[in-house]
Amino acid sequence: MINITVWGEGRHEKTNEVVKSIYPDGMHTVIAKGLEEDADFKVTTAFLDQDDEHGLSEELLANTDVLTWWGHCAHGDVKDEIVARVHKRVLEGMGLIVLHSGHYSKIFKKLMGTSCSLTWREAGEKERLWVCNPAHPITQGIDKYFEIPHTEMYGEPFGVPAADEQIFISWFEGGEVFRSGLTYYRGNGKVFYFRPGHETYPIYFDENVKLVLKNAVKWAKSDYTWNDACPNVPIDQAPEPITRQGEGLHLDGDDGFK
Amino acid sequence: MINITVWGEGRHEKTNEVVKSIYPDGMHTVIAKGLEEDADFKVTTAFLDQDDEHGLSEELLANTDVLTWWGHCAHGDVKDEIVARVHKRVLEGMGLIVLHSGHYSKIFKKLMGTSCSLTWREAGEKERLWVCNPAHPITQGIDKYFEIPHTEMYGEPFGVPAADEQIFISWFEGGEVFRSGLTYYRGNGKVFYFRPGHETYPIYFDENVKLVLKNAVKWAKSDYTWNDACPNVPIDQAPEPITRQGEGLHLDGDDGFK
Amino acid sequence: MINITVWGEGRHEKTNEVVKSIYPDGMHTVIAKGLEEDADFKVTTAFLDQDDEHGLSEELLANTDVLTWWGHCAHGDVKDEIVARVHKRVLEGMGLIVLHSGHYSKIFKKLMGTSCSLTWREAGEKERLWVCNPAHPITQGIDKYFEIPHTEMYGEPFGVPAADEQIFISWFEGGEVFRSGLTYYRGNGKVFYFRPGHETYPIYFDENVKLVLKNAVKWAKSDYTWNDACPNVPIDQAPEPITRQGEGLHLDGDDGFK
Amino acid sequence: MINITVWGEGRHEKTNEVVKSIYPDGMHTVIAKGLEEDADFKVTTAFLDQDDEHGLSEELLANTDVLTWWGHCAHGDVKDEIVARVHKRVLEGMGLIVLHSGHYSKIFKKLMGTSCSLTWREAGEKERLWVCNPAHPITQGIDKYFEIPHTEMYGEPFGVPAADEQIFISWFEGGEVFRSGLTYYRGNGKVFYFRPGHETYPIYFDENVKLVLKNAVKWAKSDYTWNDACPNVPIDQAPEPITRQGEGLHLDGDDGFK
Repeated sequence: MINITVWGEGRHEKTNEVVKSIYPDGMHTVIAKGLEEDADFKVTTAFLDQDDEHGLSEELLANTDVLTWWGHCAHGDVKDEIVARVHKRVLEGMGLIVLHSGHYSKIFKKLMGTSCSLTWREAGEKERLWVCNPAHPITQGIDKYFEIPHTEMYGEPFGVPAADEQIFISWFEGGEVFRSGLTYYRGNGKVFYFRPGHETYPIYFDENVKLVLKNAVKWAKSDYTWNDACPNVPIDQAPEPITRQGEGLHLDGDDGFK
Repeated sequence: MINITVWGEGRHEKTNEVVKSIYPDGMHTVIAKGLEEDADFKVTTAFLDQDDEHGLSEELLANTDVLTWWGHCAHGDVKDEIVARVHKRVLEGMGLIVLHSGHYSKIFKKLMGTSCSLTWREAGEKERLWVCNPAHPITQGIDKYFEIPHTEMYGEPFGVPAADEQIFISWFEGGEVFRSGLTYYRGNGKVFYFRPGHETYPIYFDENVKLVLKNAVKWAKSDYTWNDACPNVPIDQAPEPITRQGEGLHLDGDDGFK
Repeated sequence: MINITVWGEGRHEKTNEVVKSIYPDGMHTVIAKGLEEDADFKVTTAFLDQDDEHGLSEELLANTDVLTWWGHCAHGDVKDEIVARVHKRVLEGMGLIVLHSGHYSKIFKKLMGTSCSLTWREAGEKERLWVCNPAHPITQGIDKYFEIPHTEMYGEPFGVPAADEQIFISWFEGGEVFRSGLTYYRGNGKVFYFRPGHETYPIYFDENVKLVLKNAVKWAKSDYTWNDACPNVPIDQAPEPITRQGEGLHLDGDDGFK
Repeated sequence: MINITVWGEGRHEKTNEVVKSIYPDGMHTVIAKGLEEDADFKVTTAFLDQDDEHGLSEELLANTDVLTWWGHCAHGDVKDEIVARVHKRVLEGMGLIVLHSGHYSKIFKKLMGTSCSLTWREAGEKERLWVCNPAHPITQGIDKYFEIPHTEMYGEPFGVPAADEQIFISWFEGGEVFRSGLTYYRGNGKVFYFRPGHETYPIYFDENVKLVLKNAVKWAKSDYTWNDACPNVPIDQAPEPITRQGEGLHLDGDDGFK
């Protein structure tokens, strides 16, 4: 059993007729439904305006193995305190799957440390995602490539650190390319950025997209966690016998400056 | 000519007698003096309580090729706004050298995206830094290793992403090891973390430490910059001729959600 | 069930009294016995002088999920043809665990592409292996560090590419350090280099060493494989409709130069 | 002054009329001419059938800062001994630029350790190379992208290790994508793989291709070298005082097994 929380902004379908027509109950409900096709997944949804904590209570996150994140028009409305809470859980070992416009979310930028910039165009053009790593758990069941008939384009340069693994590269009808699937190991957590998902197209109903997300959840679940807290090692617990030499700031075993 | 700004917290020498006896005018002045041995370097200093901007004006940063950062007891007093300003300049191409306890500074954590945790002990023990990469620009002129007779220990696990290059590993008298020199490419900027530098020992007077810092400045200077701002690509400027298909959110050329 | 083949050189215990006294039936038998403690592992052994193929038939390798490799005095006697066979299987997805002096084996050098050089000293000194990555599958059940009371020293610089993951760093009594546990993704295969294992000490009887090897086998097993053969894509199978333009060397669908 | 050796197979233009019409004196002469536009470059050419050593004498390589490599139909005719010689020089610090079909050369496969497989099609289609890293030395002077009107297609998956830096990604008219510019640090040497260059098109006359090659040469030149030879550290030269404990194989200072 893998405990998944699907987080969605949940705003655009309330204000935009196009989005409402495709995702009347929000994108998160459709993403969740796709994941629930796997009987081993227990899926919870949460969204920005759900409550004071954007639906992401300490308790829910503590019980989440993998979190998926979709946001677009309201990145700035996500509270820093909740971002810090999610960040802490990723470093502890919670998997994180960041979707499409989530490239500019606070949580992704915080984990990457870079601009996460790209170029973009909304023309409903065709995208073809090529598999760069056919033996990777995330690409199992996917053919050499798959296509999305209508999508928003994202183009290079993508302002991220060198990825740990390159999973997909996209070809766009209008002539661009993009690193559409990238993995990052950060702390104990595994992070997967996956490009598809613009809200004016029915992309999260696509069978290939759903399969990639199911694979990615299995990959992102970490079996082990570890807490890092910058501990002092008292002198009498040094592996080799030593004694204090010279002057210092700290008493043995104190907390340090954090 | 390389324009360097040496930033120091500049507090501990005002409150602690041990620190004052070694660095009466602050550590930044000693670090700056070591760098000034290279006639090609133009060195400016700045410190936390210098002014409202911690001495780091937009103008100074715009003219800084490489910034060095030492802080310890007052990481929390550095304003988020100034951290964001430094971060932006690193992504634009300013080099950054983070020293010792700077592993827990806001700017280093922001660039790494991880906890930056480690273990530590202040016993004045011996450290030996081994060169992992003898052909790297940063290690030129350094023998197989160099020693620091009295230092604070930092031990593994070090909570950082996999480094782009491994430069030094430390051996400690008390039995620990640590990745003491690591490089990271982030945006257009080059980042070097260098471990030595506890404020109760005269480490920044050491000839090897000074040489590593001079080498690191030359390495970290970037000749090229590039601004990434998530630009829209209007449909009529797509490399391949396309027309708008289906529905969308954006007008051609608009700013997007940021 | 994981199918493991433990390969050993199997020579030194026949000519050297010290080695014979510790590993009378060869090191591979002891390594195999340690792995057999896991009921899910099916372990086969093979050695250099077993037959014309060093015990590594096509059939055995085809049925091997993970291969462990220990060699030292006879790297040069391993046939290039068998090295190529093992290499091919690693790229197809067989896991490979390279032990100690195997850093200079033909197969490890072939996979790394670098010198794999290091410094060394045989003084029977103490080694302490620190865990750099406490949440990694390979370090589960291992404390912050473990010690080997008597060992041969390996020191930096270690002539390998930047590792995909840093698992262990060693501290040596004589003052050196070494990257003792490194992972590499090559083709479909996972490669783990693990330093301990000099033949004049009973290192493969050590409980921590045995645990790391058991963990590493589970980590190195790949669930998916993929064959890469530089296929031609005939023009009429291009994802976008195109026709031949200009001159060329090849007929549609031909084999190319290999 | 940078000393460059341009190596070419030099065969196809002798047997194929199309190739002869574009590169009557071999591709290496055209590549060399492009590089000679930089007055700081001293360019030498060498080719497969030049002499017993394929034109690559010990002396020439010892005086080469950067070597460029183009081969296609005769990879198998390059002697292993010469490949080993080039490989040794790369690890010592000679830069290497591998061009187009050189992805399957012995030297590139030896440095990568992987299959270097890809998919391909020769239809004379258009290629557009996107810059992924606009602040990298190799991309200076190149716009967001550049196009090659007629080329052979190379597609993903490309069987190489994760690159140290991603420089270009190609978009092809027929629908594929490819990682067309990748950097690798191997030993002291810098390696750049650059995709363009099929012999039936005048690609090495292209201004953008010539500029990338000039930039790449400057980037690939290493200022520092270091020789790694797996040296023994005699016990009395250990950084910390130790004495021999227990049994061993080696005498102090001996050569080890190589």
